[in-house]
Amino acid sequence: MPGYSEDKPAVLRRLRRIEGQVRGLQRMVEDDTYCIDVLTQISAATRALESVALELLGEHLSHCVREAVSRGGDEADAKVHEAREAIKRLVRS
Amino acid sequence: MPGYSEDKPAVLRRLRRIEGQVRGLQRMVEDDTYCIDVLTQISAATRALESVALELLGEHLSHCVREAVSRGGDEADAKVHEAREAIKRLVRS
Amino acid sequence: MPGYSEDKPAVLRRLRRIEGQVRGLQRMVEDDTYCIDVLTQISAATRALESVALELLGEHLSHCVREAVSRGGDEADAKVHEAREAIKRLVRS
Amino acid sequence: MPGYSEDKPAVLRRLRRIEGQVRGLQRMVEDDTYCIDVLTQISAATRALESVALELLGEHLSHCVREAVSRGGDEADAKVHEAREAIKRLVRS
Repeated sequence: MPGYSEDKPAVLRRLRRIEGQVRGLQRMVEDDTYCIDVLTQISAATRALESVALELLGEHLSHCVREAVSRGGDEADAKVHEAREAIKRLVRS
Repeated sequence: MPGYSEDKPAVLRRLRRIEGQVRGLQRMVEDDTYCIDVLTQISAATRALESVALELLGEHLSHCVREAVSRGGDEADAKVHEAREAIKRLVRS
Repeated sequence: MPGYSEDKPAVLRRLRRIEGQVRGLQRMVEDDTYCIDVLTQISAATRALESVALELLGEHLSHCVREAVSRGGDEADAKVHEAREAIKRLVRS
Repeated sequence: MPGYSEDKPAVLRRLRRIEGQVRGLQRMVEDDTYCIDVLTQISAATRALESVALELLGEHLSHCVREAVSRGGDEADAKVHEAREAIKRLVRS
């Protein structure tokens, strides 16, 4: 089970809200909304996505990575390595 | 007219694709997809949103800000100030 | 004259403070300071650098780009294009 | 011992190079170097700092967090929580 599974309804609610923000962006562009206002809304959606990513990554460390490390062995190495790569992608995106 | 207006269909296409990515994220979470794969997809959507923002901001500078500066006066000051604030929000989001 | 020239002493003061932060980081590493404390200090230095970049870019828009646009012609195109590229590098670094 | 201790000489070398970049930035500003060139150099220094942070955080996960988790108990919770907070600061800086 992925680490986020107990918060699944909350994660889904946040993603649905982000989907709504992206649909709102399309309406803004269709209505020729002033660029700066579109940009402000994009910054909000980006930040909301980033926030979901941080939540999922945190839960992943607290559950999946932690359990693999407790069990030890090669899987522990693999999980820690994988988490390091995911953090890099997140910091650089 | 906002600066992005001649590229409006292209901007809308990109936003619709991002909406699809966010819907895909919801399905991934519903299906208990492995956290790291969800994170990779979130990084892709974040980067796509950022890329639309850079495009809109660039067009805004090339059109709205540029025209206001050509006309001169107080509006030019206001537009440049506003663009500086939008860049800050973008860099920090 | 670059756009930051009237704030030169302030920009230099900020850069010297950042240089001090980076030297402080070296001492922390030499003294085997706890990783998380080193990371907190790196985040502070990164944010300070980013903040100088935003200031310089803002002044560049308010002065160099603005003047080139007022004069018009090819140089205006070139300056706006160049600023767009600098913003991209900043958002993605 | 912090997790980076075996790579200490390499981390120190990278930080000294960043210190040199920041000193180079001061010279550029003193010499009235064109803003865009200063910005390019700031982006390079920011990216180098970020890269050191990712390295330290990765080593921290691979060593300190991992060992605390292997030992189990309250310290494991504390370390994982602390790493989550450091990742947030890094993503948002």
